[in-house]
Amino acid sequence: MTLKPFSWETSHLVSMDQFQREDIELIFRRTQELETNLFPVDKEKFSQMVLASLFFEPSTRTRLSFEVAMLRLGGQVLKLPDIESLSLSKGESLEDTIRVLGAYANIIILRHPSEEALQLACRYSSVPIINAGDGCDEHPTQALLDLYTIQKEKGSIDGLKIAIVGDLKHARVVHSLLKGLTKFKVDLKLVSPPELKVPEPFLRKLEEQNLNYVETPDLESVIGEIDILYVVMLQHHRISDPHQLEQLKRKYYVIDRKLVQKGQSNLMILHPMVRREELSPEVDELPQAAYFRQVRNGVSVRMALLSLMLG
Amino acid sequence: MTLKPFSWETSHLVSMDQFQREDIELIFRRTQELETNLFPVDKEKFSQMVLASLFFEPSTRTRLSFEVAMLRLGGQVLKLPDIESLSLSKGESLEDTIRVLGAYANIIILRHPSEEALQLACRYSSVPIINAGDGCDEHPTQALLDLYTIQKEKGSIDGLKIAIVGDLKHARVVHSLLKGLTKFKVDLKLVSPPELKVPEPFLRKLEEQNLNYVETPDLESVIGEIDILYVVMLQHHRISDPHQLEQLKRKYYVIDRKLVQKGQSNLMILHPMVRREELSPEVDELPQAAYFRQVRNGVSVRMALLSLMLG
Amino acid sequence: MTLKPFSWETSHLVSMDQFQREDIELIFRRTQELETNLFPVDKEKFSQMVLASLFFEPSTRTRLSFEVAMLRLGGQVLKLPDIESLSLSKGESLEDTIRVLGAYANIIILRHPSEEALQLACRYSSVPIINAGDGCDEHPTQALLDLYTIQKEKGSIDGLKIAIVGDLKHARVVHSLLKGLTKFKVDLKLVSPPELKVPEPFLRKLEEQNLNYVETPDLESVIGEIDILYVVMLQHHRISDPHQLEQLKRKYYVIDRKLVQKGQSNLMILHPMVRREELSPEVDELPQAAYFRQVRNGVSVRMALLSLMLG
Repeated sequence: MTLKPFSWETSHLVSMDQFQREDIELIFRRTQELETNLFPVDKEKFSQMVLASLFFEPSTRTRLSFEVAMLRLGGQVLKLPDIESLSLSKGESLEDTIRVLGAYANIIILRHPSEEALQLACRYSSVPIINAGDGCDEHPTQALLDLYTIQKEKGSIDGLKIAIVGDLKHARVVHSLLKGLTKFKVDLKLVSPPELKVPEPFLRKLEEQNLNYVETPDLESVIGEIDILYVVMLQHHRISDPHQLEQLKRKYYVIDRKLVQKGQSNLMILHPMVRREELSPEVDELPQAAYFRQVRNGVSVRMALLSLMLG
Repeated sequence: MTLKPFSWETSHLVSMDQFQREDIELIFRRTQELETNLFPVDKEKFSQMVLASLFFEPSTRTRLSFEVAMLRLGGQVLKLPDIESLSLSKGESLEDTIRVLGAYANIIILRHPSEEALQLACRYSSVPIINAGDGCDEHPTQALLDLYTIQKEKGSIDGLKIAIVGDLKHARVVHSLLKGLTKFKVDLKLVSPPELKVPEPFLRKLEEQNLNYVETPDLESVIGEIDILYVVMLQHHRISDPHQLEQLKRKYYVIDRKLVQKGQSNLMILHPMVRREELSPEVDELPQAAYFRQVRNGVSVRMALLSLMLG
Repeated sequence: MTLKPFSWETSHLVSMDQFQREDIELIFRRTQELETNLFPVDKEKFSQMVLASLFFEPSTRTRLSFEVAMLRLGGQVLKLPDIESLSLSKGESLEDTIRVLGAYANIIILRHPSEEALQLACRYSSVPIINAGDGCDEHPTQALLDLYTIQKEKGSIDGLKIAIVGDLKHARVVHSLLKGLTKFKVDLKLVSPPELKVPEPFLRKLEEQNLNYVETPDLESVIGEIDILYVVMLQHHRISDPHQLEQLKRKYYVIDRKLVQKGQSNLMILHPMVRREELSPEVDELPQAAYFRQVRNGVSVRMALLSLMLG
């Protein structure tokens, strides 16, 4: 799918590729205005607006956070049945489901394991679609809230040294984050086992934008010099070979107190959650742990997106 | 169940039999007023109103469309758990479930595979129930939105030649539509395989009202002379004999471009959706295809019904 | 967990132990003000408030009644996915789920089969939690609506003779009700099979408060002298030995017309519902049957609680 420049009121939000730096900065401003009650939401208008979230993969965080965002704007949320009891069970095609939902809702939040399905949905939808994760490809709204969290807590993204750590191959949020970071001047450490490196097309994006990056499997070698430590879990369900999965589990990273103490005192730790063993709960109470505030920012960033796209 | 004349504020909506032509025309007028924002909805009042939808068979369209209608009126929707996790699993009777829901909601939308269960529910409910499909019997609100779509697009229902095509035996929406059409002056072609003809009691209704109809298995023989082509899918789940099902599948109708071209240029194609093979996607872009607009009318007709019943 | 005096705006609502008589009377007054529209709800404020209900055991009544209460106050309800599709399936801990929900919602309604889990959740939650049932331990909001129903219909709780009948061992609502009744001057008959007597710690509470009680397996012996008959069903799912379950089923109580006729004419029958064979439907139409009004009071008592805790 070739993407035209993003238009707030007519585009589907599919990829971080669609955004220019100005777009991202506009989202930051709107988010901040909403957090400080400086943006006057038109509740009357939103009370007529309906959001539908259609998830073909499980989710708590993303779906709930979009729904809370819509409710806080004064809008309405359509509760879709579980995928299993959707009329899909009567054999309905995704195209028809999308066209019907477009008759009911003003915006559709879609998560689907297949990139092609997302593109198909965009082609048939009469209302904007927001990509809430398409397979191993992208998850742009998570990247936006990650960037906002960095901007909010560090004052600026430019000039930071950022390590992204873990399963960089399958974690779609990493792919969107990388695309987002190309709009800023950062120094990147891509830390992963050799089997889980960032896929080639996303690396090429970095190179096209002359973004400075190194790849390494060795977290210890970079921990002392970074401002941001962004961790993702091992994407178990994307790794089909049980033998390889076991091996990867054994050598996967673990962020614990001992490791954090090797970092700078103002190190900021982010995690898109859900977490498993890679992020020890003993880190939670450290000042470096920013991931629960990051969750909270998810609501306000999504309020900003909805207010811009439905404005 | 003998039905008294329909009273907007005290009756359950069970069957199209309950409506006089004036009732249907009142619904049309209210729908149009709502679509054009000419009817002033009392949002304050609706904000206190709660709709509960209790579905013992799966549904997307009907349930979502009622819920959107309620939300658009400013009302509230109670999200019921899946049937499986309803307290029914603790062995609660339908009577008790209905009485409890009546303490929580102002109106109940009920779909149940059994006509007897619907009648039982109506007997025990302290709030109005709307029948959203009772087995193979009726689905009156679908018929109302079908009639409204015809009226809106053709200007009038009287005088039209209408073919209803497919599984006329099991499709409850057909049964409600037939009862609705007896209030108008139309010429009916009932097109079905011999095994799937309209059941006797519904035919008798047509005869009582002197409604002109013919039954035929041959769609080609009527396609040239009709104004409306109303198609329903083969109701797989109602046909228990797998051998008969296979046979019926093989000879079932398929509405495709070639067939549509044999019809009049202003032919209007309706389908209550979900569709399967009987309605080819290649028809979607033709001007004759009215079924996605029909879906959209489902919301406004149901807003009209709710505003009349909860007024 | 040692409990501090209840504070309306900062405490979790875990146990009836937290309430003084004044707290309960405050809830009664607020409930009555809400039922008579004398309490001015700040709809504007509630429109920003979100309730999340997290149920690790099935429920209809309690969950729906909290949700309706929140909606009627003008608040919003976050629809959580089924437990199975919660991110717990990705291996998320309860602590993390609770912390994330606290970023989205203003109050959490939690039902969990384990008392320890409830305590853990309370420790990690940044927003108030209301216990909607923790295993066989307590269900305080049900007890509050039971007490309110008695107060409303009898004018006063003090001075009444109350029989609580059935599976007093496992029914958590009984345990909360007993704790609640210690704040009043009542005469208690605890009627159960010997195997299903009130557990020791709850009896000790009665004794500490000098509450007058007798234990008996014989309902007939007390039916003539009581004002309130509170029945609970046999908690099948808490009894693991199938042989014992069968035995208990055979000798369990059945409240029928014949039994009710042996009672005083102004006897009031309560049941927290769901009911099974222990409460015959033939009782429903008798003036003694108060249990459907009791269901209705569940909404207004929970509105009162939410308005006090989110005030």
